Amino acid sequence: MQDIFVKDIAQYLGQEVRLKGWVRNIRSSGKLLFIIFRDGSAEIQAVAFKPEMGEQAFEEAKRLTLESSVILTGVPQKHQKKTGEYELSVSSVQVLQIAENYPISKKEHGPDFLLSHRHLWLRSTKQWALLRIRHTVYYAICEYLNDHGFFRFDSPILTPNACEGTTTLFELEYFDEGKAYLSQSGQLYLETGIMSLGRVYDFGPVFRAERSKTRKHLTEFWMMDAEAAYVEHTENMDIQENLIRHVIRTVLAKCDKELDILERDKSALQAADAPFKRMTHYEAVEHLRSKGSEIGHNDDLGAADETLITEGSQVPIFIEKWPKQIKAFYMKRDPDDDNLVLGSDLIAPEGFGEIIGGSQREDDYDQLLSRMQAENMDLEAYQWFLDLRKYGSVPHSGFGIGLERLITWMSGVHHIRETIPFPRMIYRIYP
Amino acid sequence: MQDIFVKDIAQYLGQEVRLKGWVRNIRSSGKLLFIIFRDGSAEIQAVAFKPEMGEQAFEEAKRLTLESSVILTGVPQKHQKKTGEYELSVSSVQVLQIAENYPISKKEHGPDFLLSHRHLWLRSTKQWALLRIRHTVYYAICEYLNDHGFFRFDSPILTPNACEGTTTLFELEYFDEGKAYLSQSGQLYLETGIMSLGRVYDFGPVFRAERSKTRKHLTEFWMMDAEAAYVEHTENMDIQENLIRHVIRTVLAKCDKELDILERDKSALQAADAPFKRMTHYEAVEHLRSKGSEIGHNDDLGAADETLITEGSQVPIFIEKWPKQIKAFYMKRDPDDDNLVLGSDLIAPEGFGEIIGGSQREDDYDQLLSRMQAENMDLEAYQWFLDLRKYGSVPHSGFGIGLERLITWMSGVHHIRETIPFPRMIYRIYP
Repeated sequence: MQDIFVKDIAQYLGQEVRLKGWVRNIRSSGKLLFIIFRDGSAEIQAVAFKPEMGEQAFEEAKRLTLESSVILTGVPQKHQKKTGEYELSVSSVQVLQIAENYPISKKEHGPDFLLSHRHLWLRSTKQWALLRIRHTVYYAICEYLNDHGFFRFDSPILTPNACEGTTTLFELEYFDEGKAYLSQSGQLYLETGIMSLGRVYDFGPVFRAERSKTRKHLTEFWMMDAEAAYVEHTENMDIQENLIRHVIRTVLAKCDKELDILERDKSALQAADAPFKRMTHYEAVEHLRSKGSEIGHNDDLGAADETLITEGSQVPIFIEKWPKQIKAFYMKRDPDDDNLVLGSDLIAPEGFGEIIGGSQREDDYDQLLSRMQAENMDLEAYQWFLDLRKYGSVPHSGFGIGLERLITWMSGVHHIRETIPFPRMIYRIYP
Repeated sequence: MQDIFVKDIAQYLGQEVRLKGWVRNIRSSGKLLFIIFRDGSAEIQAVAFKPEMGEQAFEEAKRLTLESSVILTGVPQKHQKKTGEYELSVSSVQVLQIAENYPISKKEHGPDFLLSHRHLWLRSTKQWALLRIRHTVYYAICEYLNDHGFFRFDSPILTPNACEGTTTLFELEYFDEGKAYLSQSGQLYLETGIMSLGRVYDFGPVFRAERSKTRKHLTEFWMMDAEAAYVEHTENMDIQENLIRHVIRTVLAKCDKELDILERDKSALQAADAPFKRMTHYEAVEHLRSKGSEIGHNDDLGAADETLITEGSQVPIFIEKWPKQIKAFYMKRDPDDDNLVLGSDLIAPEGFGEIIGGSQREDDYDQLLSRMQAENMDLEAYQWFLDLRKYGSVPHSGFGIGLERLITWMSGVHHIRETIPFPRMIYRIYP
């Protein structure tokens, strides 16, 4: 007899198989016992019939509780009512463990209760669907980059200095070397990688010790930073657009069931897979002001502005050419206007906000040095970064995607905390 | 005219193309100028001929120095002497930046000099090859797991407690929640994931604040932890063996040129792709003692023992069934001998040492509790972990691969520090 996964059940119709997993739900009705069974790969309804199983085995099976572990033997059949679905006609039930009274029920639990029971909450159907979408989004990103000449180049987490300011850094003692900081972004390190491999990316955890309590903030989250030599501002946006459209198509193709579980409006994702809009920061501000926002021409967009700007747009919008004083020191000046930099933010539709930040980088040694001096940066600590402009500097660009924000958009969930297995927030480090 | 990458050169023979990159080396001989040109994807020899280029352009091109950035226009042709190789017949040279006197030359530099210049050292041919092998090994692991029902499940880095002891942990202040620690392993968290997804893995950075100065230690390194429900000890080793053999085959198939650059003995890797040997810890100790080791039956294997045990073996060796007192609290006891646990270490041949540690996990609540009590662990901090044995506990197993140790073996390099872009060691956190 074969041990199989539920996902493969259609290949074994009429053959006796064995399934190993857990009880999602159970109810009995006279001589029938209905077990909603899951094994991690999928769910199936298993039906036990007393006269076939025998009284003793049937009564034993009736003891099963929510989340009990169990091995079922039976014959897969087409579901009698639902086309495209299957059920298992059970011949025997091997109980591994009768679970204690399971703390998570169908009733509404508060977020604090669920987060404190995150190790169990992960088993619920929606969380299962989110974890699978996370996997799919992660590899859709890697796949696009690997197919387009990018190589993985893991930036360090422990760094001697800060990428952008120091107020939001976690710090620790590093042996006898003094303080070290957890990386907020691998971007600067990636710029060394392009000089070796041409195009590189990292994709790992980054950290922000920010006292933000919004539904879009985590203190530990996953970031993909990509960087490419000889790519300039417009091509940089082209790469981002093609990458995001690849992710949308992959999620729609591979996660149909998961999106149904999450009640995600798939037509909105389908509509987003079309040419993205592009507007300058100046145009965006004009547009926002015409819609009632009080944003000024040297202001960053707030969350409300991000929602307003994409109102009525089915596709994401690039906002490019930002005032230099509100963007990072490493962005390249716009050759047409010295007050602007060649940066772009990509804003998702449906109010999901910014999902990518990118820019062409300053490749001129003197320009970069004066920007760093103006920001009072420790030049000695960044000597290695300045070196890149001395030994064969080239035009180059890059961008960073916050994985959890992208998953939030793909899945349509309200709060970012559900998009990562164990969210870390200002008041949350357990479990 | 088309912008292309050097790796694609064979498709453009006889057509004028443009290449963007750097000067690896340059020499002139009368009316000829030979530029070893690289663009990250590959290298090519470019040949400029003064009568064709014109005197002024030729003299301009002669100014190029090591690592200068340059755009070459020319026509790819078959190399006149080397079959299977190509060269570029240059028609024009656009100099972007003449690099300053490049600090890394052909002469021998000490390791400290190279590590302090890691941001430039990465460009050298051997480091380029190692970075590409790292990429290949990383995705070979992911590919095997994704094809065998495992889902990515990113364990947290910031944790409230220690996985195995606390003496080798980096600690930091986590807002008002007290101390947090950088994860040494995501394994315990993965055990929550199998209860949702069946089979899971993480693959990210982990940290050990260990004052070790050997050539096999980093303080920050990448670890893949895998965990599978309903998999027991022997199948756990089968999965590891198939995974490692898949990695060997992938590296041989995709990194032929890189292995040549590193002068790796490919026949040794080919020979390792055969059934692995398995012996118990008891047998291993007997064998080591017969060869002169003074190891005792309750001792861990030292580095010298690991080299000795694989002497004469072309394949890796599993050492299984260890004395429980030298292995972690979460390993399941051997049902045949209560003094042993169902753990296994996989030792690479050629003296490359341990590359995987794995075990079946203790799934019985009372047994696990007593092991944790015996080790004076903080039970409240691990309540979530104990919960997994209350709500549908199942037999399960897992293992962890140190990415850099595996790359060290695949590439044959002597020191682990070259297998990661920016190595972190006890005296090294810059750049």
